[in-house]
Amino acid sequence: MRPPRPRPRPGGRTARTRERVLDAVLAELGEHGFDGLTMEAVAARAGVHRATVYRRWSDVGGLLADVLDAAGDDDWRPPDTGSLEGDLAALNREIQTAMAAEPPIMAALIAASFRSEKAAEAQQRLWEDRYTRCETVVARAVHRGELPPSTDARRLLIAATAPMYHHLVLLRTPPDPGLPAHAARTAALAAAAGAFADPAQGRAC
Amino acid sequence: MRPPRPRPRPGGRTARTRERVLDAVLAELGEHGFDGLTMEAVAARAGVHRATVYRRWSDVGGLLADVLDAAGDDDWRPPDTGSLEGDLAALNREIQTAMAAEPPIMAALIAASFRSEKAAEAQQRLWEDRYTRCETVVARAVHRGELPPSTDARRLLIAATAPMYHHLVLLRTPPDPGLPAHAARTAALAAAAGAFADPAQGRAC
Repeated sequence: MRPPRPRPRPGGRTARTRERVLDAVLAELGEHGFDGLTMEAVAARAGVHRATVYRRWSDVGGLLADVLDAAGDDDWRPPDTGSLEGDLAALNREIQTAMAAEPPIMAALIAASFRSEKAAEAQQRLWEDRYTRCETVVARAVHRGELPPSTDARRLLIAATAPMYHHLVLLRTPPDPGLPAHAARTAALAAAAGAFADPAQGRAC
Repeated sequence: MRPPRPRPRPGGRTARTRERVLDAVLAELGEHGFDGLTMEAVAARAGVHRATVYRRWSDVGGLLADVLDAAGDDDWRPPDTGSLEGDLAALNREIQTAMAAEPPIMAALIAASFRSEKAAEAQQRLWEDRYTRCETVVARAVHRGELPPSTDARRLLIAATAPMYHHLVLLRTPPDPGLPAHAARTAALAAAAGAFADPAQGRAC
């Protein structure tokens, strides 16, 4: 949901090498995109021996997967604005800001996930982790009485955020400053109308 | 919204050559994906001289762009089921079927749009055309009195379909048989709650 910034855990020389290499991947990706990303350029930029990079990451897909995995190793939490619609709008603004960032790291990583199976799997893990963390947005809304307890948090979160990704990643339209709030309001209105209430769970109560 | 099938207009030898070449592109793409798609293989499969393929399409991106442009040259119309929610659900089922088709032509074309600027532009043109054709779904709902005349058709259509693409293209989750109807219902509920009514147009009336 926000631009990946790898944060390898502090540690010894191995951790410092990883940090230098992953920073170099992001810098190379930002400058040259996937097509310009090579093991050699990453090793040179990181000041790490090529053999080390090959041994540890195998190929460009391995490097990208590790960047994505490291990006998930942070303390990101979704915005807490006091309302469901406010939280979803703030989340969507984070997505739009991240996708519009220069250099376009997040866009390049998503594009890379169409090139490398390893990167695709890591991208899926990162999204799964981010959506799981966002479930607290729905839990807080349930706690405030804005939503029924049986609300399907994942479906609601995807309904709220999918139009952002559809515009920014697939349709590639210029960022629409009104879209984060509009998509949030749409999902909140649908939620208030019961779109994400799980009827099975409702019956069980 | 449905699997692209190039339908070059009937015509002379030039049109027949184009049809053979574009069919060969789809076949090669389905069998080998973007990475296995070459001008040479397409020319050989189509039984057309390499020089002709290079002269007319320049490169693989040019071939993919022409496949996408030809796919838009059909008589596709969105489903007409008698209700907004029914139309949107049928549309989402078409998207899901197209994305799940074997060989995965539509998925391969979307993936290719991250590799080639020409393919990306053609993919954007195709989506723009499809969403424009789908506006009739909203116009019919307005005519039936289901929606106010000021409804923002494009935003409604994107809200209804974006979760499909988000799951199938980006999150790459296995197709969820309940999602087409659920995403349609969510958009229809939000629409009924006024999510897509344009307040500016409302005031002007």
